[in-house]
Amino acid sequence: MNAKIRATVWGENVHEKKHPTVAKIYPHGMHQQIAEGLREAADFEIRTATLDQPDHGLTEEILEKTDVLTWWGHCAHGDVADKIVDRVQARVLQGMGLIVLHSGHFSKIFKRLLGTTCSLTWREAGEKERLWVCNPGHPIVQGLGPYFEIPNEEMYGEPFAIPTPDELIFISWFEGGEVFRSGATWKRGNGKIFYFRPGHETYPTYYQKEVLLVIRNAVRWARPEGSLWIDSCPNVPIEKAAEKISQKGESLHKPGEAGFR
Amino acid sequence: MNAKIRATVWGENVHEKKHPTVAKIYPHGMHQQIAEGLREAADFEIRTATLDQPDHGLTEEILEKTDVLTWWGHCAHGDVADKIVDRVQARVLQGMGLIVLHSGHFSKIFKRLLGTTCSLTWREAGEKERLWVCNPGHPIVQGLGPYFEIPNEEMYGEPFAIPTPDELIFISWFEGGEVFRSGATWKRGNGKIFYFRPGHETYPTYYQKEVLLVIRNAVRWARPEGSLWIDSCPNVPIEKAAEKISQKGESLHKPGEAGFR
Amino acid sequence: MNAKIRATVWGENVHEKKHPTVAKIYPHGMHQQIAEGLREAADFEIRTATLDQPDHGLTEEILEKTDVLTWWGHCAHGDVADKIVDRVQARVLQGMGLIVLHSGHFSKIFKRLLGTTCSLTWREAGEKERLWVCNPGHPIVQGLGPYFEIPNEEMYGEPFAIPTPDELIFISWFEGGEVFRSGATWKRGNGKIFYFRPGHETYPTYYQKEVLLVIRNAVRWARPEGSLWIDSCPNVPIEKAAEKISQKGESLHKPGEAGFR
Amino acid sequence: MNAKIRATVWGENVHEKKHPTVAKIYPHGMHQQIAEGLREAADFEIRTATLDQPDHGLTEEILEKTDVLTWWGHCAHGDVADKIVDRVQARVLQGMGLIVLHSGHFSKIFKRLLGTTCSLTWREAGEKERLWVCNPGHPIVQGLGPYFEIPNEEMYGEPFAIPTPDELIFISWFEGGEVFRSGATWKRGNGKIFYFRPGHETYPTYYQKEVLLVIRNAVRWARPEGSLWIDSCPNVPIEKAAEKISQKGESLHKPGEAGFR
Repeated sequence: MNAKIRATVWGENVHEKKHPTVAKIYPHGMHQQIAEGLREAADFEIRTATLDQPDHGLTEEILEKTDVLTWWGHCAHGDVADKIVDRVQARVLQGMGLIVLHSGHFSKIFKRLLGTTCSLTWREAGEKERLWVCNPGHPIVQGLGPYFEIPNEEMYGEPFAIPTPDELIFISWFEGGEVFRSGATWKRGNGKIFYFRPGHETYPTYYQKEVLLVIRNAVRWARPEGSLWIDSCPNVPIEKAAEKISQKGESLHKPGEAGFR
Repeated sequence: MNAKIRATVWGENVHEKKHPTVAKIYPHGMHQQIAEGLREAADFEIRTATLDQPDHGLTEEILEKTDVLTWWGHCAHGDVADKIVDRVQARVLQGMGLIVLHSGHFSKIFKRLLGTTCSLTWREAGEKERLWVCNPGHPIVQGLGPYFEIPNEEMYGEPFAIPTPDELIFISWFEGGEVFRSGATWKRGNGKIFYFRPGHETYPTYYQKEVLLVIRNAVRWARPEGSLWIDSCPNVPIEKAAEKISQKGESLHKPGEAGFR
Repeated sequence: MNAKIRATVWGENVHEKKHPTVAKIYPHGMHQQIAEGLREAADFEIRTATLDQPDHGLTEEILEKTDVLTWWGHCAHGDVADKIVDRVQARVLQGMGLIVLHSGHFSKIFKRLLGTTCSLTWREAGEKERLWVCNPGHPIVQGLGPYFEIPNEEMYGEPFAIPTPDELIFISWFEGGEVFRSGATWKRGNGKIFYFRPGHETYPTYYQKEVLLVIRNAVRWARPEGSLWIDSCPNVPIEKAAEKISQKGESLHKPGEAGFR
Repeated sequence: MNAKIRATVWGENVHEKKHPTVAKIYPHGMHQQIAEGLREAADFEIRTATLDQPDHGLTEEILEKTDVLTWWGHCAHGDVADKIVDRVQARVLQGMGLIVLHSGHFSKIFKRLLGTTCSLTWREAGEKERLWVCNPGHPIVQGLGPYFEIPNEEMYGEPFAIPTPDELIFISWFEGGEVFRSGATWKRGNGKIFYFRPGHETYPTYYQKEVLLVIRNAVRWARPEGSLWIDSCPNVPIEKAAEKISQKGESLHKPGEAGFR
């Protein structure tokens, strides 16, 4: 438990190249600014990965060295290769933590793990967002008061089409009148998943200290506490049964054979 | 609530054609025998659908008329078209009930909705299975005693790689010494999902009255009580906000524009 | 399923006698106004019960005839007898629905069933509350739009000290800047529980049509679909075991004896 | 995170004095043997507490220094004072872990936190129990294989009258034909709760290495990761509201006054 937490910050990194507004706020990419915020923690070891790299920067080797993966994507969700989504899903089930940020609600990996559409309502008016803490004792909110505010953000509103979270961490109040489940957790296999709403590309949200604090807390919370998930379907031969039994009835499989998939 | 419950029984119907052992037990196909069991209920309207039909028998029109879908598949999971899986998933999220039977644990639709591998251990020894009721007041077990037995079944054993069920309905005791979560429920969107373990193709399980009773109960339990799920991501224009606000900061989207996916 | 739903509306009925402000709004008591709202439904059979009646109006006989119980209490939570709380809890576990209203968050029965403190923050400023629907397909919100507003209400704010709900139905936005999980469900035993926030005694909330609609929908949703819960701890004698076994080792109990409690 | 984990082992310690069978197996009391098993871990600091001590050994001071409490009780559940149950509940909600052992399923504290009857079926025949691991990656099962066996145990059988666990860790197979959810977790407030079935007083179960390993793992898993739970119900005065508002409508409370309980 004393070893460093190895986090990989994944960024789509498309808006930053295409839109001057975004480029001005995040000249090195949003992923670099998120990584900066994590580097403030002495117990972390941080790397970044982006869509345009081979395997989107998420090779088997990199994922094996990743305790927690953060994910920001938006306009290029469809460009993420299915085989990489398979790979990330497998690692989450094994125990890798996953922090899904803002528009990542529509990423392939988030929808894959949750099984629902993850839709919501939205408005890009730069309105004020106030995030309320639903449980002041939760590790993810340590260092915060009862709420914090972001002066300008995109609005996301309910209904948010997710399965019931294991725990609700934040609910947002928006100036324009909406509310949203802005921080929520799930477990899939041995992996802990945290969705955190803020982070629209046209505002300097990832420079705000409370936002970075939450992401740091979440990375610590999501580090693997379990390991391993089951992706084999082993046959237990009759002679290896815990109780002595013998073959009865018909069978399609030969002893020890792999099952159908 | 007085209208009939419209159930569609889906069967892969491959073993029945390829393996004489199976053909002898289920000469009209396993799906026909399951459908027979459901037809005992006066309040049901039953149809069947199979893999070899156009759209695997699951057209938009059929699904719209289906309140509850039962699913048995095994050796041909990979032959189910992804677009049909998308379609079934969308209907489940909207509220259609889904009863996944036996080897359907590895079907695309089950893994899609649950987000995990759904692996398990297994043995085809025709051993005795005893299914214990975990909650005698649950609608799915009405008409059963504390347990019922199946004289010959395939063994499925823990670990079963699923997310925590909303409710555990049955746990199985196997002659060879294993245990298994044999009946479990989840909700995804507005659809109720029930996994029911028994039903190996080489045994006459779907002729057993307790098994048919459970499936009938489950169809009634899984009928839609909600409706509609959210698969749009509507923009709420500034002038339609519940509270009066005005544009602040930068924006990438034009007013009323659809969001990225 | 065609029989009427028998609902009992429980009211503390203390403020209505002590405070002229409340008496003016609810001259016959808050419970009578809630009962009026339910009587609009032709499929309901409604009775009321109050604190000052013998057994608080909740005798064994009444509870046995009650499918769903609604609960409003505030200043006299401590005057509810523990034996009546035991009785209500037993009926909920058996399958009776329970709708807990507003300040009932601090009732003995709600805390008993949830196991937590159920604390929250509050302000009595008559501010505007807007309740957002978290799942438009859920039976409890049928007939509502994306949200509804109450012009004057007491504010309840997060953190709300509850275990994670099975489903979140409403989140409230308050004029003063807070948010709250205003509609949430849990299952305990076979009983469905719905907490619904609105209903402060100094405002005419229970005259508002959306509020009454939600309570009617909730009563229908909470009607028993299961029955029976286990409050015996039966010994299974050796000779009645499903598998043949014989006594081994020491024992403190005599055969067939009741266990310790 | 480097400080020692402070565990308090609570034992009813009544059978050990009354029944020679039990005294022979556990001459120093069952709690001492459980404590011995925990002392094998260098990162633990262990104390014991028993029913006959003042405050049952669970003073405010002791509980404040307790990270995880283990609980074994049986014939004297009714002798545990309600005010001590209140105190333990409050500490669990704040974040103290709670490991409930065997017949502790009927303890006041377990029923208080879960809200259900926690009934089950049972038989004292010294039969073989085989505990299957439901998730080999979970921290509580590290060091175990797919299952372990206890040669002589009391049988506990389904139905087990609990709310759905957050995670199911073990399912037991019994020689006499029953099954049981033998290891299960819940969270209440910030406290993690683990129920672990084995440990009948007439067998030397707490000498078995796998049983002690599980309890050690569970103590580590249950150590507080959060802290603090909400047991105040603060009024937020109008002038402290996050958004500027002014009083509207009637009020029963004076500004800043405490709410009703």
